[in-house]
Amino acid sequence: MKIGIIGLGLMGGSLGLALKHIKLVSKTCGFDHNLSHCEEALKLGLVDEIVKFSEIKKCDMIFLAIPVEAIISVLQNLKDIPKNTTIVDLGSTKEKIINSVPKEIRSNFIAAHPMTGTEKFGPSAAVEELYHDSIVVLCNMDESGDIHKNRAIQVFSHIGMKIVFMEAIEHDKHASFISHLPHALSYALANSVMGEEEPKSILLLAGGGFKDMSRIAKSSPLMWKDVFKQNRKNLLHSIELFEKELNKCKAIIKEEKWEELEKWMSNATTLHKIL
Amino acid sequence: MKIGIIGLGLMGGSLGLALKHIKLVSKTCGFDHNLSHCEEALKLGLVDEIVKFSEIKKCDMIFLAIPVEAIISVLQNLKDIPKNTTIVDLGSTKEKIINSVPKEIRSNFIAAHPMTGTEKFGPSAAVEELYHDSIVVLCNMDESGDIHKNRAIQVFSHIGMKIVFMEAIEHDKHASFISHLPHALSYALANSVMGEEEPKSILLLAGGGFKDMSRIAKSSPLMWKDVFKQNRKNLLHSIELFEKELNKCKAIIKEEKWEELEKWMSNATTLHKIL
Repeated sequence: MKIGIIGLGLMGGSLGLALKHIKLVSKTCGFDHNLSHCEEALKLGLVDEIVKFSEIKKCDMIFLAIPVEAIISVLQNLKDIPKNTTIVDLGSTKEKIINSVPKEIRSNFIAAHPMTGTEKFGPSAAVEELYHDSIVVLCNMDESGDIHKNRAIQVFSHIGMKIVFMEAIEHDKHASFISHLPHALSYALANSVMGEEEPKSILLLAGGGFKDMSRIAKSSPLMWKDVFKQNRKNLLHSIELFEKELNKCKAIIKEEKWEELEKWMSNATTLHKIL
Repeated sequence: MKIGIIGLGLMGGSLGLALKHIKLVSKTCGFDHNLSHCEEALKLGLVDEIVKFSEIKKCDMIFLAIPVEAIISVLQNLKDIPKNTTIVDLGSTKEKIINSVPKEIRSNFIAAHPMTGTEKFGPSAAVEELYHDSIVVLCNMDESGDIHKNRAIQVFSHIGMKIVFMEAIEHDKHASFISHLPHALSYALANSVMGEEEPKSILLLAGGGFKDMSRIAKSSPLMWKDVFKQNRKNLLHSIELFEKELNKCKAIIKEEKWEELEKWMSNATTLHKIL
């Protein structure tokens, strides 16, 4: 099976590396509108070959590893692919993308969200084990053709992913809590410190806690502004729920209700019984 | 030099382990009001011996590795130590603690804050390398006697720490941003998810970002409520500044100003040029 990967950054590049060791993949072809990314990806061996967009269309399976707004526009240019070609998007939002898929290729299409990543981006960020042992959410699979479902399940399983099926609406709600809200908080925390008079002398003291909390504030603004755009309503809702919790904390501190604070903190620690 | 450690949890236990390899330390004595902690610490070899509080007072150097409110009360029971005994507190707040030191022993006292830790607690959480390569802030050193200053600097240097000197007022402001605010945010994030109908199905999707952001919400509520209490004003101030940033983000999303969102995110990423 010939695989095409559109977008050779962290997600696409890591996928190329992971697919190298899978027997059912005979060749990987890469495409990126950024020419220096193409060169770098080839040099790093992320894909076997760099091809034109028209050549990507001839692959058996095409992965879209580009920002979510770009996924929507590229999908409009894939209307004429053969019936047996599978398209898989790896975007962090699902509903808007699924709704944008041209009718002609809806059954070719698999909506996937691998729950993995790092704060780094670009071809040099690619790592072979990125997908291994992570979860991939596949959405609205009823609307996808059997051959395409099976292929996607096979490939994701072969690179060591655990598959979870979910409706796109539900996915987008959950993702806003588990991924998009944490990004908003991390960016806001970083901006709070950068807004202070002496960020350098503050950051001198940064321990593991702060480093962890600010790590994802390194993530690509180009990619994340699109995610926030597409999951706008859910994200606003989860930000509001977060604000309520933070307000609760603030009120408790203001009113000096220390036993209540301990309870509020203890409730938070119960999360780790599930996680 | 005989060292006494009051509190045999993560901080005290790890200190005991680190001090084992230092020539200038002849013996480590531990004290904890929790008897099972004493037994565990001895079993794990965190200290050489468990002693009574009256015996701890005979050590050359006494470390207070207990919650910050407990530090204040224990200090009142150390008024009668000899002139040559050094007391070092390892609390996360500094001003209230320094102000609480009885006059009689102010020159014996060193106010230290090691900028290290994990979300775990208790003797079993102790790790030898906890302090290595981390920063320790020493505050208001003008008020400490020379012999005590030198001892503290020597011991912290020998366990591989980088020493930063700072006024307590400045430390508490910085610490509220770099450590106390991130804890409030992590607890609030955990509570936001736990407040949802199906936290389990949300947490099923947790990737590295969420795990990092919620890690410190595992931290001991008993310890952290005291930190929030002692650094109340600074923490409220930093929460308010954070809220302003999050509100900015929310308003941008509401008004769909995507280019502005990208700028706001890009500004956050500049933090990592310093960190």
